[in-house]
Amino acid sequence: MYVDLPPDRLREYRAEREAPADFAEFWEQSLAEARTHPLGLQVTAVDTPIRTLDTYDVVFHGYDGHPIRAWLKTPKDATGPLPVVVEFPGYGNGRGDVVESLEWASAGFAHLSMDARGQGAAGSRAGATPDPVGSAPSHPGFMTRGIEDPATYYYRRVIVDAVRAVEAARALDIADPERVAVVGGSQGGGLALAAAGLVDGLAGVVSCVPFLCHIDRAITITDAHPYAEITKYLSIHRTKAPAVLRTLSYIDGVHFAARATAPALLTVGLMDPVCPPSTVFAAYNAYAGPKDLLVWPYNAHEGGGVEDLRASMAFLAPLLDGR
Amino acid sequence: MYVDLPPDRLREYRAEREAPADFAEFWEQSLAEARTHPLGLQVTAVDTPIRTLDTYDVVFHGYDGHPIRAWLKTPKDATGPLPVVVEFPGYGNGRGDVVESLEWASAGFAHLSMDARGQGAAGSRAGATPDPVGSAPSHPGFMTRGIEDPATYYYRRVIVDAVRAVEAARALDIADPERVAVVGGSQGGGLALAAAGLVDGLAGVVSCVPFLCHIDRAITITDAHPYAEITKYLSIHRTKAPAVLRTLSYIDGVHFAARATAPALLTVGLMDPVCPPSTVFAAYNAYAGPKDLLVWPYNAHEGGGVEDLRASMAFLAPLLDGR
Amino acid sequence: MYVDLPPDRLREYRAEREAPADFAEFWEQSLAEARTHPLGLQVTAVDTPIRTLDTYDVVFHGYDGHPIRAWLKTPKDATGPLPVVVEFPGYGNGRGDVVESLEWASAGFAHLSMDARGQGAAGSRAGATPDPVGSAPSHPGFMTRGIEDPATYYYRRVIVDAVRAVEAARALDIADPERVAVVGGSQGGGLALAAAGLVDGLAGVVSCVPFLCHIDRAITITDAHPYAEITKYLSIHRTKAPAVLRTLSYIDGVHFAARATAPALLTVGLMDPVCPPSTVFAAYNAYAGPKDLLVWPYNAHEGGGVEDLRASMAFLAPLLDGR
Amino acid sequence: MYVDLPPDRLREYRAEREAPADFAEFWEQSLAEARTHPLGLQVTAVDTPIRTLDTYDVVFHGYDGHPIRAWLKTPKDATGPLPVVVEFPGYGNGRGDVVESLEWASAGFAHLSMDARGQGAAGSRAGATPDPVGSAPSHPGFMTRGIEDPATYYYRRVIVDAVRAVEAARALDIADPERVAVVGGSQGGGLALAAAGLVDGLAGVVSCVPFLCHIDRAITITDAHPYAEITKYLSIHRTKAPAVLRTLSYIDGVHFAARATAPALLTVGLMDPVCPPSTVFAAYNAYAGPKDLLVWPYNAHEGGGVEDLRASMAFLAPLLDGR
Amino acid sequence: MYVDLPPDRLREYRAEREAPADFAEFWEQSLAEARTHPLGLQVTAVDTPIRTLDTYDVVFHGYDGHPIRAWLKTPKDATGPLPVVVEFPGYGNGRGDVVESLEWASAGFAHLSMDARGQGAAGSRAGATPDPVGSAPSHPGFMTRGIEDPATYYYRRVIVDAVRAVEAARALDIADPERVAVVGGSQGGGLALAAAGLVDGLAGVVSCVPFLCHIDRAITITDAHPYAEITKYLSIHRTKAPAVLRTLSYIDGVHFAARATAPALLTVGLMDPVCPPSTVFAAYNAYAGPKDLLVWPYNAHEGGGVEDLRASMAFLAPLLDGR
Amino acid sequence: MYVDLPPDRLREYRAEREAPADFAEFWEQSLAEARTHPLGLQVTAVDTPIRTLDTYDVVFHGYDGHPIRAWLKTPKDATGPLPVVVEFPGYGNGRGDVVESLEWASAGFAHLSMDARGQGAAGSRAGATPDPVGSAPSHPGFMTRGIEDPATYYYRRVIVDAVRAVEAARALDIADPERVAVVGGSQGGGLALAAAGLVDGLAGVVSCVPFLCHIDRAITITDAHPYAEITKYLSIHRTKAPAVLRTLSYIDGVHFAARATAPALLTVGLMDPVCPPSTVFAAYNAYAGPKDLLVWPYNAHEGGGVEDLRASMAFLAPLLDGR
Repeated sequence: MYVDLPPDRLREYRAEREAPADFAEFWEQSLAEARTHPLGLQVTAVDTPIRTLDTYDVVFHGYDGHPIRAWLKTPKDATGPLPVVVEFPGYGNGRGDVVESLEWASAGFAHLSMDARGQGAAGSRAGATPDPVGSAPSHPGFMTRGIEDPATYYYRRVIVDAVRAVEAARALDIADPERVAVVGGSQGGGLALAAAGLVDGLAGVVSCVPFLCHIDRAITITDAHPYAEITKYLSIHRTKAPAVLRTLSYIDGVHFAARATAPALLTVGLMDPVCPPSTVFAAYNAYAGPKDLLVWPYNAHEGGGVEDLRASMAFLAPLLDGR
Repeated sequence: MYVDLPPDRLREYRAEREAPADFAEFWEQSLAEARTHPLGLQVTAVDTPIRTLDTYDVVFHGYDGHPIRAWLKTPKDATGPLPVVVEFPGYGNGRGDVVESLEWASAGFAHLSMDARGQGAAGSRAGATPDPVGSAPSHPGFMTRGIEDPATYYYRRVIVDAVRAVEAARALDIADPERVAVVGGSQGGGLALAAAGLVDGLAGVVSCVPFLCHIDRAITITDAHPYAEITKYLSIHRTKAPAVLRTLSYIDGVHFAARATAPALLTVGLMDPVCPPSTVFAAYNAYAGPKDLLVWPYNAHEGGGVEDLRASMAFLAPLLDGR
Repeated sequence: MYVDLPPDRLREYRAEREAPADFAEFWEQSLAEARTHPLGLQVTAVDTPIRTLDTYDVVFHGYDGHPIRAWLKTPKDATGPLPVVVEFPGYGNGRGDVVESLEWASAGFAHLSMDARGQGAAGSRAGATPDPVGSAPSHPGFMTRGIEDPATYYYRRVIVDAVRAVEAARALDIADPERVAVVGGSQGGGLALAAAGLVDGLAGVVSCVPFLCHIDRAITITDAHPYAEITKYLSIHRTKAPAVLRTLSYIDGVHFAARATAPALLTVGLMDPVCPPSTVFAAYNAYAGPKDLLVWPYNAHEGGGVEDLRASMAFLAPLLDGR
Repeated sequence: MYVDLPPDRLREYRAEREAPADFAEFWEQSLAEARTHPLGLQVTAVDTPIRTLDTYDVVFHGYDGHPIRAWLKTPKDATGPLPVVVEFPGYGNGRGDVVESLEWASAGFAHLSMDARGQGAAGSRAGATPDPVGSAPSHPGFMTRGIEDPATYYYRRVIVDAVRAVEAARALDIADPERVAVVGGSQGGGLALAAAGLVDGLAGVVSCVPFLCHIDRAITITDAHPYAEITKYLSIHRTKAPAVLRTLSYIDGVHFAARATAPALLTVGLMDPVCPPSTVFAAYNAYAGPKDLLVWPYNAHEGGGVEDLRASMAFLAPLLDGR
Repeated sequence: MYVDLPPDRLREYRAEREAPADFAEFWEQSLAEARTHPLGLQVTAVDTPIRTLDTYDVVFHGYDGHPIRAWLKTPKDATGPLPVVVEFPGYGNGRGDVVESLEWASAGFAHLSMDARGQGAAGSRAGATPDPVGSAPSHPGFMTRGIEDPATYYYRRVIVDAVRAVEAARALDIADPERVAVVGGSQGGGLALAAAGLVDGLAGVVSCVPFLCHIDRAITITDAHPYAEITKYLSIHRTKAPAVLRTLSYIDGVHFAARATAPALLTVGLMDPVCPPSTVFAAYNAYAGPKDLLVWPYNAHEGGGVEDLRASMAFLAPLLDGR
Repeated sequence: MYVDLPPDRLREYRAEREAPADFAEFWEQSLAEARTHPLGLQVTAVDTPIRTLDTYDVVFHGYDGHPIRAWLKTPKDATGPLPVVVEFPGYGNGRGDVVESLEWASAGFAHLSMDARGQGAAGSRAGATPDPVGSAPSHPGFMTRGIEDPATYYYRRVIVDAVRAVEAARALDIADPERVAVVGGSQGGGLALAAAGLVDGLAGVVSCVPFLCHIDRAITITDAHPYAEITKYLSIHRTKAPAVLRTLSYIDGVHFAARATAPALLTVGLMDPVCPPSTVFAAYNAYAGPKDLLVWPYNAHEGGGVEDLRASMAFLAPLLDGR
């Protein structure tokens, strides 16, 4: 069943809230701090059962110089320069195992699949990157760690990591730094929008059923996790709603979308209770670059699934030809 | 939590029921009938975004000569002869999309992924093969179609299809017919055991968290679907239990296992309510060929997941070297 | 709680979609094909513990000449001509046992209770009629069998069976063919509307909490089964929505209602998530014959239950007096 | 799935607890008190749509002389003497509507269907009999009303009503007092056992999936309602377990069974979490009269359903012939 | 997630229904009848482990002179006159244990915590007061006992008890009868509103997330218990809705609120499915005295929890100073 | 329903696993490291509405010198020396608000209620103490933070904090350091056992329905949270079970119990799925000091609730008299 506004109202749905006045400054400063640490890119070939691809264990330095792990996969013996697809994981997942997620590299791209720090022990794909930063009291999960201040918020760190992942991708020997795209679904889709808003010159953005969009609305229209972590937090720390909502406004995909310029493909499921469609439409309608949206009327949070993957590949295929 | 006997009792658990006296005859006759139809193998190259593999749309004739679809994937420009991994799908799933399930071909095998007739509209991977045969009254799902007689039972048809899939695999131009293995998880694992019991000369059998084993016990120790379809059927057709249990005895993985000779790898999750561990141990302990078992103490029906895949690849890796 | 529009909006709710242009032709042709087979009516007395009624096992030929079973119950030693109540079963149910459903015959009617082919192993009443027709990949259940083409759709067959059941009722020795009514609840109510739209000269139509009405809307406003089978199908076969919606438009109760002329009684529960009230109001408001509607504000899919039965009996009572 | 001991252990399962020493005295006194009130039998013909039966609204005086309502149904124009089937309702239900429950009278019996005082607003069949007695604090439902003392316990009143219903049945003009049987399912089955233990000369006892048996065990092996009402009560009134268990020992079907002499048919579902099978076997194995047990291996609380009804009719059929 | 109207519409939401014409007369008469019985106040010191408070077991006579129990707690060796906080319990709860609910007395008030007759075996706090009055058939719980007539309705009795509790409070030796406030949450909040509408001269009213407000709407917008008891009742006793709604109109908090004059503090959770916010706003907007409302956007039925307690204490703190 | 072994087997149930060889050394070293930081005790009076108690905001230095917050409550104007009850919170909770948890101080004790670092945003009582330490990938919650090494495990830090809380209690001006007891329920009960095993000279230990006992078993017999966090972690990090189980063996209450000497009161609910009874009996049977156990047969994780509180107060009451 539809879980949100009717389709015709979704089409025009826009968020009303503005980004905080110092939004750009906040992120400039956050990235500047991270860049005081060297990128520290390490790329180590690993032996795997996959014969059609080359696989590398990648480490780079993210927020506060913390080491972040990723897998790099490339077509066997490719020489490059290759377009790079930087992928961000869904909530609870990490970069997974080397025998998983072969699609992008098999399609001819260099594929850099990043861990979300501290995650990777709840979904289906394991992570290998610690988050060395602690937190004030938080609800189980990652959504409310350090949430009372943008400076300490968990997603500040992850978004800085995501931007640094793009920088790492561009620094790869095999990469064509002009042809770097970001992709992801759910949390990964939210991080792709964040990267789109913070990184110049991306060749493409794919954000499937994105999470972390129009969060102030999301927490009032769904009780599904992980948005519900925030609601639960506020149900106990009742007087902290203003601080929490302020923090969230710094990482909301709607505000990143409004600052993006790269061509983007978004997707949305009209029966998605996890990332309700109006929150995705709010991001889509705010998106400032060229854009397209795939609407799946009968899907929940799986969205277009393999159809989203196929559409993403078609959307980014021109990059393989050097465009 | 553990959902079945304690681990030490599982280790030695055996089913007590015998196969029906005419078990072998039933299957010989079923296969002989199918073989009165030509195999009708068609292999058609298809265009896909996957550049590291060649993909083919395969059709062969299964039970009663019905056309069955499969995907064949091989490493790009491989010349063969290659070992072939024949994969059977999990319940509700079909062969899926060409951009899914790249692992086996990327690891160097020819990979033939078969539809389960009529399925492919409930899991995550779509099917493309009809089941043209109707049924007496049945519970929603596939478990009870034609269940009151082995001759009309749905799984008789699917198992014949599975055997014919192995024959199709051996008939592929690129195949080394001496190096054909069967793999699958859940329903696919049950079908792999069936193939192991019905086909001579298989090079390997991988059966992860197999379904369709020790079914008479399974329906008394779990209320999870799809075994529950049988229980629900019997809860309404109360007087048909003897006929139904008789039918099931012809397709029980325990009896196929007792007739198998190829080396096999099985896996089991001790917290799996869908395919409870004692039913898997019953099949493993009955298995007549060389065998190994991976026991995952803290997993439900996902079993070893990517670890199962890695172990399967290691188990079948010698085939890539011609062994 | 109310599960749909508020009561005042329900009252005027109408579906906007038109029937397909060839709707009438489709059904004329479907029925003409069925009528190329003889009706093949067989009526066999059966021995039961019920002393106040005579019970007969009835077989007639439905779609494609397939045999369809029904129970005929009449007051003990009744000589006729009697009015006949033809009843269609709810989803998952069949005609049941001879000691069940004594109400209509005990009230003085001849009662012909038909099986829904292939069903009768999921509700509480067993069926005895196979559906010999197979299907392309389908979601567990009956809703999506052959759903991509009206010609192959499961409900095409069942609706033809329902029309033939009325023809069988009229052909019974004991029947007054001018006094035949159709009744049913849920799926049975949907089939009663279909019969009302396809059969001339019915003496009455009772459709309680009907299923199969305004289906295109139903699948967007409820996630309850069995409508959800369609949604699940479309969530996997994502590109097939146009074909599926087209097929459904041929069996939608709203379109049958618009072609009906017999006096009808419908009922609806305002808290019914299975057959949401707006879909029933859409059928009621489209109904072209004399009509009445019982609205149960505090009921879910049980609707008026025994009150619906009593009202149905009162509605059809004039038939007992020859009217 | 099986919800209790394995079948072979069920077969021999017996409760270990003894009835309280004054069990017989308690009931003699309770009945004697009730009999200080006249039976007050009133039988009033009612007009119904059911033409094959005569229906009467019956009132008699039960516990403390409170009026208890029942329906009497007899085959149309029957003259008697007829055997009488006294039926007790399932938990939450009352005698229902006159157009329901036609089976027993249609099979030739006089059928007296009693209300359970205060119930009839939770199941599917409405009741019409108040319970004018209040209660100390109780958990929602009827299980814990007055539970701290056998003298004030709700079921003391209902069981007295049930015995008085048999007396009312024997006093009916149309009845053969030598041919009175008691029947019921779930709570009704428990009340049938109570009647069997308290009334002499019953012609038969049918107790399907009986509730209220081996209650001290039941509350430790299931968390299903209505047994769970007791557990919830004890979870709050923690120090009252001895008093509560003592009270329950006065109404436990196991103790009534041990005092019964009439021939009995019991039924049980091995997958019944509401009335777990060991509690039914305990009653069956304690039953002191001739007895039979129908075991349904794949059924939950629906037990044998229509098969139970058919078996009950066959079991009591000899009464129709005057035996 | 928000479970009701959007916040801006809630702010102005008003119930449209009028109180019954004889509302005032009904309650005057009900209270007059109760007052024909002496108040019968008994106050007995009890020994507890709590050293900072004095605790007394209180009994007074409520509806029909039935004895009602309460705890009185006062600061150790307080001499008075003290302001008294009369507290009514949440649904299913009673006055609890003497070591619970120390807050109000520890804050300096005399605290009189009343039982709700018959309750106290379902929540977490036990009750000790029987309800000696029986009922016509009712749904499990207290909501539908005697519901077809205001004269027999359960809540008529409880509300009379609540008014008598205030009278008992004023009659306490230690009390300043000019400084008596009523407080409660959920059911207790509903009873506080009832007392506010029926008692003159209250010094304050605290009604947290009140139950029993705008009940006719509540039963159509939530399926949560205990409102759902009413819906379930009506789903079986389908023809009794007018009588039931009439009864409920006599105990609806909206109508009491419209007659109140004392200063009041109400609270509401916008995510509360148990007492949906529009029903609380309806009561608040109808409240005729000075008033304030705490709105908790992210809370369910726990409402403001400890923040509600703190706000209540601040609201009533002036009473401690003799105001 | 009982959720574990039958009561007679529980009585004698013992864990078989030994503590790690360096268990004592591990904790000596952990505590020694913490003690390299000054205790840093700060006690600041706070203004509250509670007039019968004095309340203080307490900070002390725990693991690695991190500041840990607690509330100290004492009877108004008490001069001491007083016995001190140190309380540890349940999972997800913190020290709460000053108007909560008045019982111990009201009973005459000094009551020191400690935060669990990082918690206090999931239960009902808020926390105010950060955990500044990050973690490798973890499952949502606190159970798996740093779980692959005892040195980095979250509970190492919390247990050190708990020991330091006792030291802080003894250092309070008002305290009699010879009369310090530790109490807690669930996680708090597990921490009380840990303190009992690590601190000499405690005057009493109250551990209600303790968590964190016989953890290796717990994760195989329940799927309830929070134990399930560990199972979920292991279901993804499949190869880490040995490391994880090793870590857990350092914080298992069974091993602390075996080292305890202070008199203890434990409680257990036989229907507790959160802390299954065999795990509590294992701790109780291992407990090396004087001990008593309250067994609540019909309770889940609420255990004895207020009865546990009363029993705890009675158990510790002699301390008030200086014993």
